[in-house]
Amino acid sequence: MDIWLQISLLLFFSIIGYLASRRFRQPISIGIIIAGIFIGPSILGWVSYNDSIGVLAQIGAIVLLFLVGLECDFKEIYTKKAFLVGSAGVALPFVGGFAVSVVFGFDLVTSLFVSAALTATSIGITAAVLKEMGKINTETAKLILGAAVIDDVLGLIVLSVVKAVPVGLGIDIIFTIIKAVAFIAFAIIVGEKFVPKMVDRFDLRARDGKITFMLAIGIAFGYAFLAEWIGLSAVVGAFVAGISLSRSLNVRLFQTGSEYLEAVFTSIFFISLGIIVDVNALFTSTLLIIVLVIVAVATKIIGCSYTAKKLGCSKKDSLIVGVGMVPRGEIALIIGLYGLLAGIITQEIYSALVFMAFITTLLTPPLLKMLYKNDPGGRTPTQNKSKVTVKQESKLKVRS
Amino acid sequence: MDIWLQISLLLFFSIIGYLASRRFRQPISIGIIIAGIFIGPSILGWVSYNDSIGVLAQIGAIVLLFLVGLECDFKEIYTKKAFLVGSAGVALPFVGGFAVSVVFGFDLVTSLFVSAALTATSIGITAAVLKEMGKINTETAKLILGAAVIDDVLGLIVLSVVKAVPVGLGIDIIFTIIKAVAFIAFAIIVGEKFVPKMVDRFDLRARDGKITFMLAIGIAFGYAFLAEWIGLSAVVGAFVAGISLSRSLNVRLFQTGSEYLEAVFTSIFFISLGIIVDVNALFTSTLLIIVLVIVAVATKIIGCSYTAKKLGCSKKDSLIVGVGMVPRGEIALIIGLYGLLAGIITQEIYSALVFMAFITTLLTPPLLKMLYKNDPGGRTPTQNKSKVTVKQESKLKVRS
Repeated sequence: MDIWLQISLLLFFSIIGYLASRRFRQPISIGIIIAGIFIGPSILGWVSYNDSIGVLAQIGAIVLLFLVGLECDFKEIYTKKAFLVGSAGVALPFVGGFAVSVVFGFDLVTSLFVSAALTATSIGITAAVLKEMGKINTETAKLILGAAVIDDVLGLIVLSVVKAVPVGLGIDIIFTIIKAVAFIAFAIIVGEKFVPKMVDRFDLRARDGKITFMLAIGIAFGYAFLAEWIGLSAVVGAFVAGISLSRSLNVRLFQTGSEYLEAVFTSIFFISLGIIVDVNALFTSTLLIIVLVIVAVATKIIGCSYTAKKLGCSKKDSLIVGVGMVPRGEIALIIGLYGLLAGIITQEIYSALVFMAFITTLLTPPLLKMLYKNDPGGRTPTQNKSKVTVKQESKLKVRS
Repeated sequence: MDIWLQISLLLFFSIIGYLASRRFRQPISIGIIIAGIFIGPSILGWVSYNDSIGVLAQIGAIVLLFLVGLECDFKEIYTKKAFLVGSAGVALPFVGGFAVSVVFGFDLVTSLFVSAALTATSIGITAAVLKEMGKINTETAKLILGAAVIDDVLGLIVLSVVKAVPVGLGIDIIFTIIKAVAFIAFAIIVGEKFVPKMVDRFDLRARDGKITFMLAIGIAFGYAFLAEWIGLSAVVGAFVAGISLSRSLNVRLFQTGSEYLEAVFTSIFFISLGIIVDVNALFTSTLLIIVLVIVAVATKIIGCSYTAKKLGCSKKDSLIVGVGMVPRGEIALIIGLYGLLAGIITQEIYSALVFMAFITTLLTPPLLKMLYKNDPGGRTPTQNKSKVTVKQESKLKVRS
């Protein structure tokens, strides 16, 4: 099918998904994903996933995480608290996944892959929901984001360990760990001091916002590449780039511009998540999917909430942290795909993992919304002139 | 090579091209294309053209033409005078290009593509020069702008006709012309009344500028598909969508948003034009390039100046109109690229067309400045803030 027709359809149905989710007071991302399921091969078959759509969708994910990063602050994200919550959120799901695998009679290597696939949180959907609800600047949101980045890194370390098991444990694991830590360290040191200053100096010379915006987007994609190159997911790189550029004097410009890219490409990202889903797998691997989802949800919530509680969060905030960490996404899919292609896990197990990722993602937004409902501690935008408020203002300005 | 690294490199080198062209007071698109030549296979070989880059570049072309459409004010620019000057400025270069092709022994289809590539003036470059000299609000400037927009459309109709030729001469071409004219007429008439009203009504209900922007972009891609589907080029559809939506109350929103998309994707479009260029053509096709440039300059000046003179312009103003119409740009490059990818014109001829676009563009500013020298009648832009002024200003930022 013609790519322009596909893009057009994806945008129109994203709009329908958006309007429907607003009508039923559900998160927009979920409305768009469900619209994707409808137009995808499983039901109407109007649009199917292909390489071009894939690139546009990934650009959408990169823009989304870049935007989330722009609204973050380094010191508030990389905390000891986040590290502990993230670690617990990796350890418990791994143990849970291994237990499930043993019960289903999988062999050792398969079990290790299934376990690894349960570890890493996909920060995109939670970030989108928090952003949508104006909670992205709360302490809790920052703890979730920090822990999610850390467990992405840990999840990939687990993958490299598990990958090495069939061949024997070796130097690869240590090397991956060193690379991941070096990237984050590099991003913190260079990103905090050098990059925003360089961008602002460039802006003073260029005297043209559009060109400075191009530079920022170029940096976002550069970081995405670096992250992928060292074995992390591309969106982690975009997120780190956003955090780094949140120190720039031009942060408002980057936010405004990225929001227009987001309107087009992040919609394509969400709707293509729906398009990928193969509804038939729901019936062929029902039991495995149900058990995996229960274990994935329970271990994340228990692991993260318990740790957050121990670290001094309120009961409700701890629960929000746990629920916010539930969705699995690209890392789970990467691990599953690697296992499938290496002949380590079967097509059935792979499909079950995809559904696990999808259902955990689908569950999170309504759960988070429920938890935030009647939140007396929530600040209204007028009381607190935070970045989020400013953002909403800029949104209004654009319209008028 | 990793797609994120490619995008990153394309953006960084676009920025370098932009800065270099500003430094040397040359049109920005030319600077970016030259940057593309440097990083392309001809010289450094850092990035090569592939399908993913191709989709992003085409999105850039669609966004560019959508913006050009958005910035059109029909009644001020589309006068009978402008139509006649524009038509003469299409007819003569087409005939000239065909004559050159025959002399060089090209076959019929190749000749038609070369001829078509000579037709359309690039309005951005002339507008930049006129604005720089404070002449943008003169009658002559408006005549040039109107004629240039009309010859863009005519050039694209010529492309659609020429595209149909390989399929079969005869009734098909007439049918294509009818379809092309019908599409544009229908899209403009229906588009002028129905589409902007529908979009504005949607906006009142949606109460969210980003969603209305998504709708506009969805319409742009929908029109691009429709245009391609009936045999026109996708960019004509985007252009018509832009003209239609220029009537919307939200036109400023669409412009603002599209300019951010343009900053990223139209840069990728321009730089990828350079990546495809084969520098060796300068040496292997020297004669063709020289002849094409002479014919391109002479036919435009003669065709437009003569018509302008006949329509009552002074001798000097007529000459200014003719020279102002000389530069070829994005339409020529789009036609060339289409011919190259369809296997209709060779890499050598494509590169010769690209160099023709460069050289005609580089010649125009000094010639116009010479003609305007010692002219006491020019108004300054501050005296008359018409829509054209605002339009060109926003255009200058990214496109030149």
